[in-house]
Amino acid sequence: MIFTYDALRKIIVDILLKIGCSSEHANISADVLMAAELRNINSHGVIRLKDYINLYEKGRLNPLPNIKITHQTPSTAVIDADTALGMVAGDFAMKIAIQKAKEVGTGWVAVNNSNHFGIAGHYAMRALKHDMIGITMTNANPLVAPTFSLDRLLGTNPIAVAIPAGKYPPFVADFATTPIARGKLDVMHKKGLEAPLGYVQDKTGMPSTNPNILTEGGAILPLGGDYEHGSHKGYCLGSVVDIFSALLSGAGFGPFVPPSVAYLPIKETGNGKGTGHFFGAMRIDAFQTTEDFKLKMDTWIETFKNAHSIDDEHKVLIPGEPEKEWEAIHMLQGITVMDKVVEELKQVAASLGVEIDF
Amino acid sequence: MIFTYDALRKIIVDILLKIGCSSEHANISADVLMAAELRNINSHGVIRLKDYINLYEKGRLNPLPNIKITHQTPSTAVIDADTALGMVAGDFAMKIAIQKAKEVGTGWVAVNNSNHFGIAGHYAMRALKHDMIGITMTNANPLVAPTFSLDRLLGTNPIAVAIPAGKYPPFVADFATTPIARGKLDVMHKKGLEAPLGYVQDKTGMPSTNPNILTEGGAILPLGGDYEHGSHKGYCLGSVVDIFSALLSGAGFGPFVPPSVAYLPIKETGNGKGTGHFFGAMRIDAFQTTEDFKLKMDTWIETFKNAHSIDDEHKVLIPGEPEKEWEAIHMLQGITVMDKVVEELKQVAASLGVEIDF
Repeated sequence: MIFTYDALRKIIVDILLKIGCSSEHANISADVLMAAELRNINSHGVIRLKDYINLYEKGRLNPLPNIKITHQTPSTAVIDADTALGMVAGDFAMKIAIQKAKEVGTGWVAVNNSNHFGIAGHYAMRALKHDMIGITMTNANPLVAPTFSLDRLLGTNPIAVAIPAGKYPPFVADFATTPIARGKLDVMHKKGLEAPLGYVQDKTGMPSTNPNILTEGGAILPLGGDYEHGSHKGYCLGSVVDIFSALLSGAGFGPFVPPSVAYLPIKETGNGKGTGHFFGAMRIDAFQTTEDFKLKMDTWIETFKNAHSIDDEHKVLIPGEPEKEWEAIHMLQGITVMDKVVEELKQVAASLGVEIDF
Repeated sequence: MIFTYDALRKIIVDILLKIGCSSEHANISADVLMAAELRNINSHGVIRLKDYINLYEKGRLNPLPNIKITHQTPSTAVIDADTALGMVAGDFAMKIAIQKAKEVGTGWVAVNNSNHFGIAGHYAMRALKHDMIGITMTNANPLVAPTFSLDRLLGTNPIAVAIPAGKYPPFVADFATTPIARGKLDVMHKKGLEAPLGYVQDKTGMPSTNPNILTEGGAILPLGGDYEHGSHKGYCLGSVVDIFSALLSGAGFGPFVPPSVAYLPIKETGNGKGTGHFFGAMRIDAFQTTEDFKLKMDTWIETFKNAHSIDDEHKVLIPGEPEKEWEAIHMLQGITVMDKVVEELKQVAASLGVEIDF
């Protein structure tokens, strides 16, 4: 089913208002989910709303959080998100990071007691209009086995970095520290496809092509795939994201990150509070004049765009470029939501008594 | 040939004094090269000294640099390294990052007009004794083709992150954003071995197993190997390192990074000055009490060390753990230097009139 941007956004806002969110928080959260839809990352869009509502119904998500700064220095802060929607926590934290960057050049904010926050890139991109570089990390449900491990100890732990340019769209990298996100495995499984080697291992640690192997004790591999191809580097990256997001903030780390779905129980052995995030903002003019930097970013982008490519169908892309193009297409042509997700939205709306006209 | 730590270090110091370095700078540089030797990363140890001397002889390396802070805010600085030895520039910059972290919680320093600086991890580790997290990045000679590119536009652009722990050795990740470093290809070529698929491509962009393909227009692939396995993520990482190191500092970016060997000419199209680095220091107690954080890091390390592993021979390693073990072995048993490198050292010493007794 195809929705206009405004229609789909209104459904999200109405549902979040109904569970008791403030208008401000409902709108902030809708913006993040809609950013994912616009950028064609629909694994992090409205499909997640049902999970958030289920977490609320289990008492694991607070619609009226009292988000607090619990510690700070001129360039840093730690935030207790009071089990808020991750989008609300992320918005709050990124604002603090940007404010600190205005004051002392850079700002770095670690968040505990949060939940799934949607697409990492959204928060990093919030820095752009302030002529700052934005950085976002988050830990997540443990699905990834470190190099040589049978146990799943890390999430797909994404990193996002948004960098302003001049005449070109900004550079926006936003990627899991694994070869693929979990959502892609689900799609392969539903289509009856095999997964390429290098994505997952089975419960004995052997390479597997079964995209459903996570339900059989398997694990996603770190970026790099196997040791020979540098999976220990992907493991390092995922670990740094985990330590920055959880140990600097006081959130649950690694295997103790709470599940982002309500049907999985919270682990009793957690040694921190909730999901953790880490945000950074660096003012461009804390290093170079903004004008010079943007001119150089344009030259950087041109140099990479103009590289000789392997063939005419596969140009060298600038990170964020395809997502930017999708934004324009989706604003113009509307956003397609899978039938299954539309049904879920209808059920959620009906159960909460939210009127939707589709 | 096996050297004691002190004997090998003295050779480096004596040679650097002879080209006009101050005693302070010669000792700083020797410490970095020796750190690489101790940590068993001998591709970044004394083997590099000949290249540095050659650069000096071509007038591309300044033994008496006037390193200056050219711009700063409370949490940031930009440094012009005046074509210093990279180790001298890195030492200077990391000290500034640590000082700023003492003052406002974190410090971030971008360096232009520098040279090859040895192992990235050394500078990150300098933060540890101050109970800080240390971060290092550097750009490097273009050898890496972005996803779908035939052109070599990025270096192996390493990232290092050092994080203090309590009773355990620190977490030290230090890795190129490629499946392998160039040095390993050279070793394969010399031994007549094929490179595994996923390391390099030929000049037409096709997968190659020729470890010598860089001399035939080939390129190293980004971490991930191919697009299907996430090479665009390795490309993103290498790009972020390049932009932070070069565009925030004013150094040469991507294809314009000057060669770290004197036999390759400086490119005339450079749009920045020299090689660029980026350093960060974050005070632990700008987020958590140092004591709490270190206890949690110990728990983190234990959790990962105690993971079930694929077999008894392949334990789950903590980043930095193998290098730490090598340090102890090399301090005790001495450091083996390849005959070829010993010969080069002798030649360099003889040409400069440095007396060495081996």
